[in-house]
Amino acid sequence: MSASTHSVDGERLWRTLGELAEIGATPAGGVARVALTDEDLAGRERFVAWARELGCSVHVDQMGNLFARREGTDPDRAPVVIGSHLDSQPTGGRYDGAYGVMVGLEILRVLAEGDVATAAPIEVVSWTNEEGARFPPAMIGSGVYAGAFSLDEGLAAPGVDGTTLGAELVRIGYDGPEPCGQPDGAGRRPIGHYIEPHIEQGPILEAAGVTLGTVTGVQGIRWYDVTIEGQSAHAGSTPMEHRSDAMVSAALLVCEADAIARRRAPEGRATVGTLATGTGSRNTVAGTVELTIDLRHPDAVELASMHDELLAFAASERFGGGPGNAPAGLPPKPAISQIWYSPPIVFDPAVVEAVRAGSAAAGFEAVDITSGAGHDACYVSQVAPTGMLFIPCADGLSHNEAESILPEHATAGAQATLNAVLSLAG
Amino acid sequence: MSASTHSVDGERLWRTLGELAEIGATPAGGVARVALTDEDLAGRERFVAWARELGCSVHVDQMGNLFARREGTDPDRAPVVIGSHLDSQPTGGRYDGAYGVMVGLEILRVLAEGDVATAAPIEVVSWTNEEGARFPPAMIGSGVYAGAFSLDEGLAAPGVDGTTLGAELVRIGYDGPEPCGQPDGAGRRPIGHYIEPHIEQGPILEAAGVTLGTVTGVQGIRWYDVTIEGQSAHAGSTPMEHRSDAMVSAALLVCEADAIARRRAPEGRATVGTLATGTGSRNTVAGTVELTIDLRHPDAVELASMHDELLAFAASERFGGGPGNAPAGLPPKPAISQIWYSPPIVFDPAVVEAVRAGSAAAGFEAVDITSGAGHDACYVSQVAPTGMLFIPCADGLSHNEAESILPEHATAGAQATLNAVLSLAG
Repeated sequence: MSASTHSVDGERLWRTLGELAEIGATPAGGVARVALTDEDLAGRERFVAWARELGCSVHVDQMGNLFARREGTDPDRAPVVIGSHLDSQPTGGRYDGAYGVMVGLEILRVLAEGDVATAAPIEVVSWTNEEGARFPPAMIGSGVYAGAFSLDEGLAAPGVDGTTLGAELVRIGYDGPEPCGQPDGAGRRPIGHYIEPHIEQGPILEAAGVTLGTVTGVQGIRWYDVTIEGQSAHAGSTPMEHRSDAMVSAALLVCEADAIARRRAPEGRATVGTLATGTGSRNTVAGTVELTIDLRHPDAVELASMHDELLAFAASERFGGGPGNAPAGLPPKPAISQIWYSPPIVFDPAVVEAVRAGSAAAGFEAVDITSGAGHDACYVSQVAPTGMLFIPCADGLSHNEAESILPEHATAGAQATLNAVLSLAG
Repeated sequence: MSASTHSVDGERLWRTLGELAEIGATPAGGVARVALTDEDLAGRERFVAWARELGCSVHVDQMGNLFARREGTDPDRAPVVIGSHLDSQPTGGRYDGAYGVMVGLEILRVLAEGDVATAAPIEVVSWTNEEGARFPPAMIGSGVYAGAFSLDEGLAAPGVDGTTLGAELVRIGYDGPEPCGQPDGAGRRPIGHYIEPHIEQGPILEAAGVTLGTVTGVQGIRWYDVTIEGQSAHAGSTPMEHRSDAMVSAALLVCEADAIARRRAPEGRATVGTLATGTGSRNTVAGTVELTIDLRHPDAVELASMHDELLAFAASERFGGGPGNAPAGLPPKPAISQIWYSPPIVFDPAVVEAVRAGSAAAGFEAVDITSGAGHDACYVSQVAPTGMLFIPCADGLSHNEAESILPEHATAGAQATLNAVLSLAG
């Protein structure tokens, strides 16, 4: 079957995205469809109704992960699965997650409309609690599916509102019967190939004027908690050379982290998102500063060398001194603790190639891109051949009610995904 | 009269400092004798009792400033006044303020014991609410005395506990009758010369191994509130060259402020004591950072050039770029607002010389030093010839229960002050 035989209906996709966005709509134009709330339930029910209209069967596993299935002709083939998530941030946008599920729905509609037979079954999945806003950590539905967490851990995940994920699954009636997350994967719903279409949540495609991105993998991440101990002192009566100023050392560390990433442009990233002075006072030299560092790179070796450079700087005389290698005086002491490491992920070459070719067949030359954010595809990639496709979003803005995409980009991404799905499903 | 004829009793001074420190004593060895509390009242009453034992008259002005007076022989001479303050920080030390008042008391004792006649009267003053911990701003008692605030402003000063300074003066019975703070100074108790002995509250004397410091003046201070507006963005999906990172710009500003002061070593000072990221998150590029800057220099022209350099840096490409002049990308915008300027103070040459000579006569070569902290002497210097003398404190520590001095330094400072007072009082 030629990938160009069938076409998505862009207007229908756009209209459907709009209808879904009415569920949990916020006054500012975003959505609040937080995991396992009544709004999330309403979104699930809408999706289920749409899928049943197409003759799909609907399946829910023990984590509430929701699958709509269209059968294939070859009973030995595992399904090609398209999806993402229907839950949102508390003040989230209309497209983060929703886009991937609605692209899957549009593909089911095209196949039903054309009465298209595929060898492999086609499934569309919405993973539970991708955002993690209500039940940290994020991506726990796909995480349990892939065995990164046990089912017990997943169900026991505490809500920020005092509930548990498992109790809220029962409350909304989505504590499904299908196995999820056995240690050996036994009984877990099989996935032949997984494709997750998603908005980029970054500025790269828009800045490059490109419509589609073939996601080749996901950045590795290292998170650090840093405490710098200096000596608090009077801002007026303590000469510079007698100070042990934790703030100046913190500033030097911020600059160095930034430089470590810039030396690896454009892939390296470093962010100090929080920095605080304990009982800070404007006329007291800071005795203690606490800050966080987030380092990312798609290559594990490069990320490890970023780690090494960060620690080497903190151990060097430059850290304890003043700007421009001023004399050290009394160097503040850093304690840098790596609290999380998520290794880089390289997506399956066959799925990546199917996305690339599907984009070309849709008339777009997709650029290779690395995902800087985590997605359900990260966990799924541990147990099934996986890939992703990105479309641009305005100003790279996401997790924000102002999240915005163009209809023509939405259509292009859906067509490319359809093409890839048909090539993989045979 | 020779300055070396009379000697202070160091053991008596030390014992008296210890007795005073019992009032409001804290378990950690400090004192909590906060302005116009019952503890402050008890401290005042102890001082009054000691002064009356010596035959002194006691005078209280409308701001509760407390004067113990020993008459002179020349009815035309205004008094030589020694003093500081009896109030403390909530977890303060035993010597900040108390030292100056107890040195004054020791001098009254020496004069009484030796039946010494001086031409000018001698007064010992304790200014109200020097610390400002309960009734901001600091030094309001001497401030009203010198006309920097009106009497109404002083009495209306709101307490952090919902009281007012005026109401608490009435409560403890220290709303005195003597005029304080008339616009033209009319009726204000006259001061011929003012000497304030004080602990250094900094590390300079200790580090230099010097016993006494002749304070030649007080640093000028400029305080700034700074807001840096960048653009919050995803820590993973936003390449470094697409960022407008308020934290990196803040770090560059911290380093530059530090460098501005270090270029003027040893007198220049710069401190960023507080820095905060609004709704910071470890995986979000900081969109906004707020910080404070404290610049100090004893020379007004130098302090103005520090100000100019700070603003020039904030307006330059270096501020908006990355470390090492990385490309600017989207430069964050700074808003730097100077919220306070306290000009440098140069003390009266005759009083400074009297302190220097008094130290030499006591056997110590006092080094010239600039005060980095504010003192009642700052306000008094606006209306009377004024000087200060510093003694070392351990590790430069002050506003801290661990504040500590050596008995021999306490004695040396008292003897030098006595010598200076006798030379000024004639």
